[in-house]
Amino acid sequence: MAESWSFLDTFESNFRPLVVIELAKGTKKETIEWFTKRIVDKKANGGAQLLVKPLVTEKGEENIYLVGASHLRLLLGAETVGLVKECNDNSMRTFTYSSRKTFRDFADDNHNFLTMAECQYIIKHELENLRAKDEKMIPGYPQAKLYPGKSIVRRLLTSGILVQIFPLHDREELKKLRHSWYGRVKVGYQPLDEIRCYFGETIALYFGFLEYFTFALVPMAVIGIPYYVFAWEDYDKYVMFATFNLLWSTVILEVWKRICAIVTYRWGTLLMKRQFEEPRPGFHGVLGINPVTGREEPVYSSIKRQIRIYLVSLPFVCLCLYFSLYVMMIYFDLEQWALDYHEENESNFSSLMLFVPSIIYAVVIEIMNRIYRYAAEFLTSWENHRLESSYQNHLILKVLVFNFLNCFASLFYIAFVLFDMKLLRQSLATLLITSQILNQFAESLLPYWLQKRHKKRMKKRMSSLKTDTDLTLVEQINLEKEMGTYFGTFDDYLELFLQFGYVSLFSCVYPLAAVFAVLNNITEIYSDALKMCRVYKRPFAEPTANIGVWQLAFETMSVISVVTNCILIGMSPQVNALFPDSKMDLILTVALVEHLLLAIKFIMAFVIPDKPRDIQIKLAKLEFESLEALKQQQMKLAAESLKE
Amino acid sequence: MAESWSFLDTFESNFRPLVVIELAKGTKKETIEWFTKRIVDKKANGGAQLLVKPLVTEKGEENIYLVGASHLRLLLGAETVGLVKECNDNSMRTFTYSSRKTFRDFADDNHNFLTMAECQYIIKHELENLRAKDEKMIPGYPQAKLYPGKSIVRRLLTSGILVQIFPLHDREELKKLRHSWYGRVKVGYQPLDEIRCYFGETIALYFGFLEYFTFALVPMAVIGIPYYVFAWEDYDKYVMFATFNLLWSTVILEVWKRICAIVTYRWGTLLMKRQFEEPRPGFHGVLGINPVTGREEPVYSSIKRQIRIYLVSLPFVCLCLYFSLYVMMIYFDLEQWALDYHEENESNFSSLMLFVPSIIYAVVIEIMNRIYRYAAEFLTSWENHRLESSYQNHLILKVLVFNFLNCFASLFYIAFVLFDMKLLRQSLATLLITSQILNQFAESLLPYWLQKRHKKRMKKRMSSLKTDTDLTLVEQINLEKEMGTYFGTFDDYLELFLQFGYVSLFSCVYPLAAVFAVLNNITEIYSDALKMCRVYKRPFAEPTANIGVWQLAFETMSVISVVTNCILIGMSPQVNALFPDSKMDLILTVALVEHLLLAIKFIMAFVIPDKPRDIQIKLAKLEFESLEALKQQQMKLAAESLKE
Repeated sequence: MAESWSFLDTFESNFRPLVVIELAKGTKKETIEWFTKRIVDKKANGGAQLLVKPLVTEKGEENIYLVGASHLRLLLGAETVGLVKECNDNSMRTFTYSSRKTFRDFADDNHNFLTMAECQYIIKHELENLRAKDEKMIPGYPQAKLYPGKSIVRRLLTSGILVQIFPLHDREELKKLRHSWYGRVKVGYQPLDEIRCYFGETIALYFGFLEYFTFALVPMAVIGIPYYVFAWEDYDKYVMFATFNLLWSTVILEVWKRICAIVTYRWGTLLMKRQFEEPRPGFHGVLGINPVTGREEPVYSSIKRQIRIYLVSLPFVCLCLYFSLYVMMIYFDLEQWALDYHEENESNFSSLMLFVPSIIYAVVIEIMNRIYRYAAEFLTSWENHRLESSYQNHLILKVLVFNFLNCFASLFYIAFVLFDMKLLRQSLATLLITSQILNQFAESLLPYWLQKRHKKRMKKRMSSLKTDTDLTLVEQINLEKEMGTYFGTFDDYLELFLQFGYVSLFSCVYPLAAVFAVLNNITEIYSDALKMCRVYKRPFAEPTANIGVWQLAFETMSVISVVTNCILIGMSPQVNALFPDSKMDLILTVALVEHLLLAIKFIMAFVIPDKPRDIQIKLAKLEFESLEALKQQQMKLAAESLKE
Repeated sequence: MAESWSFLDTFESNFRPLVVIELAKGTKKETIEWFTKRIVDKKANGGAQLLVKPLVTEKGEENIYLVGASHLRLLLGAETVGLVKECNDNSMRTFTYSSRKTFRDFADDNHNFLTMAECQYIIKHELENLRAKDEKMIPGYPQAKLYPGKSIVRRLLTSGILVQIFPLHDREELKKLRHSWYGRVKVGYQPLDEIRCYFGETIALYFGFLEYFTFALVPMAVIGIPYYVFAWEDYDKYVMFATFNLLWSTVILEVWKRICAIVTYRWGTLLMKRQFEEPRPGFHGVLGINPVTGREEPVYSSIKRQIRIYLVSLPFVCLCLYFSLYVMMIYFDLEQWALDYHEENESNFSSLMLFVPSIIYAVVIEIMNRIYRYAAEFLTSWENHRLESSYQNHLILKVLVFNFLNCFASLFYIAFVLFDMKLLRQSLATLLITSQILNQFAESLLPYWLQKRHKKRMKKRMSSLKTDTDLTLVEQINLEKEMGTYFGTFDDYLELFLQFGYVSLFSCVYPLAAVFAVLNNITEIYSDALKMCRVYKRPFAEPTANIGVWQLAFETMSVISVVTNCILIGMSPQVNALFPDSKMDLILTVALVEHLLLAIKFIMAFVIPDKPRDIQIKLAKLEFESLEALKQQQMKLAAESLKE
């Protein structure tokens, strides 16, 4: 095969493998030949103009390919994806090849100008944008249809010919990162910029948020401790704590937007233009003309989708919520029954029976969560969203609502139906602490242990016990391709979201929640870091300018917590004692305070600017410059026109 | 003077006056010469390259100048201001001179391609962007300082040399517009496109909103009538009416955004890029470097401004609000006193005395409103905002809050302190109807009558009673320059906003409010149209894509009205009768319903897209095209680079 790539020979000397393509075993020769030809073919011929090398393993199998690119190709790719880099004058600008000399640290021989994560992102983008020309199908697989403009890689993936594409780890870099991230005991911030260089912006922003959120919880935790230590139960102290919490949660969410803007400005993603989004791989429909691009692609009526969403998904979700509530009621019945049984018999067995309902309920909830997750994924996929982002948003919404109910419904029931504050505090503590421990175990430590065992076995099989950095490329790839895939930050954010719920929804009943949250998050940072570095395949970098729908989710939670906290305070015996004559006055006062707090929250969210002033000025400056450039151009043209 | 303009001779033949400049009487010759020279000078020399002609009146005074421009100049100006026009393929695109042939109705000899309002907007923009080069002062006026980049026209205005700049009416067009707008009795929509062509987008959008709002109130009015006719006082019917109103007001505000997008897309302003905003004329500060433009201009510390806003303006506004409430309390005391007096004496005089408090209160409120308005303008101007838009927003906010309190505080007091529903209904009706009648009289009919009298006197003086269209240019300009200036849509929107308050805040108490609002708005359309066409100078067109801060104001009002209506319903005897045993259950139920309604409102506002799907697609298409163009350019470059 290599003969036909002769024009690449000049580059071959410095071939640096960036991305691994794993094809299905036994993929037809002609398919491989056609696919690799398309990857290396010139841009002008509709290729991606990348470099490709087969990985020859001991067994002589040829189903793994390494993709790289020349330095020049990567620079041009950086322009195509719209990368934003820092210039010599400290401003951030969209990189263009023609203006490359104005960028900081650029030199024709500096191959570190683009980070490895950026190079891999560029290659992924180029591969995904490799489109069918006049092919009607994938050569060798007549059932895998193609049409002009269809992404070849996506079709290969959906038809199972392509098993996976993943970026390679850089052992050296990873070791450095691990060291500065969690390798030594130190007090200080995470190396966010290094994380971003290695894992990309989405993941770095998650860790940034996790860290910020932990710091933001510290004041709550500090204020919460004396309540626990001195067992304060005074009405005025509770009110103060709750009021502080509610306003504080608004402040931290607003300030996060500003910090996010600062960080993503430095990373360049704040300025990055949104690329035109392609249909997601699973999207299907009859072939039609896309009204935006004018290209032939599957088209699916928006009305049909709306019908599916509102007439099927929405009722289904409501049914699930109802069912979940029903299960909860059964749990409370069981609990009552166990209590009665224990009181009647007072034996060892009966005191053991007291735990049975909780255990059953926990197991049932976990099962329901998993089934629901599958159902939500199936339904959202069946809704047939054209864009990955809208698919994600609908999925997140579905999962969020259900998880919210599952986690908090029992607490709401205890608080607002049973009016049992002691039980509420107890349940809250149990739920919070067990869920944190379970999460950390299931999410990081268990996979890490499994991974370690697997690696040892692999190494033994290779019968040479080397350290990580001494692995040959073949060994490294064989190790990495078997690692788990990191499916994005969804579950990590969900965990934080539920934690925020535990902390804020009932903050005036259990001030210690913030303390546990802080402690958990400190270890969470390390266990998540471990997970990213040791357990999973390296994920592709994904540029992002904010935490997206999660910002909205956290803000909604903080609004709901105003309501719950006001009711809790209103129900407390201390507050009730203040209004001995009239319950009505009490309720009216509580309602008034609640509305005032909500109004203050909204005004604060409105008044605090989303971007700090200096970022605003920098953005305005860029906009002004582009307007001026346009005007200059027009003036030149005008002067010429008027001369004629 | 005219000798030096020889290069304009070729254009002079088709000079069409568009804009009038009135200088102060006795302006120094050298100033006039310098100013007109700058206006006609070539762009390359820093001039505006427009045409200028003195208007020689009978008395030989030379303080009025007419400004026009060649067709080519206007087209180039259209490109500079970023006008968006319809292309031959029905899409809307930013006009550029080089692509002029692709635009609908473009022909080199078609001078109607740009509407007169657009031409005047372009000239205004060019005049305002006429900037000082190396002049240190305005020639002849050493006290009127200039610095490089300072807008000459703004300095001339602030130093009183320039009295006013206003666009000329087009008698022919105006007559046609008047005829199709309000000249004949007809059922149908207003000619929004024609209004937009003549008065520009801001004013057309106001009339569009007024019309839309009137139509949107019709369902409320229709549902409200039977409540009045049959004197329904049943709890369930009230609840239904209020619920309908609350959800309906959310729907109409959301739908308005969509309609607004449709209309402004057609007008091209939805796509228009925001120009870089210059400092407003009144802005002052020490000379420094603008961090955005890098130009020398007055700079004022943002922190100082914040201090002025939060430490002076905010307390002042709060004080005014408190004072206004205090006056209201005095009014209620007076009212009570008058009532007592009447009951004691029962004479004709005493029944007359019953009206005295209301009259005094109305007069005091009017006086307070006026004083407050001056104070607000002074304070906002003292806050020294750099941008006109931020000045406007702060002024609107101040005036809005005060007017809201003045109009509704007494109603709130009656409803929620006195609990007197009958009095509430009565006051509401009185306030609504009298304010509507007074407004229409003071705003349109009175100025119209004054204007008409003035015109007659003018015509008599000119001793030739001609019809409007036969007026000579001199006479027309002399008439128009004395007409009042239209200060923008602020007062018109404010009136609508307060009306919306009357209709929605207490809608379940006085369902007839919507009927009166509809009736008022129908006449309001005509009286406002009369005002625009007959009473005021033609205003400069102002491109806009939405109704700005008013959307937010209306939305806030609709949120407040959920709260008020829920409380009103909760207080009604019918609802109270449903909960005979426990007031607590009643209040809890009302609070629950209120929260539900608010939640539904927010969800609805979130779910209904702000732009209709086809507009979204059109916008996406434009964005896609510009991305593609960029990519094509980059690919070309890439291909060249790779060949090297």
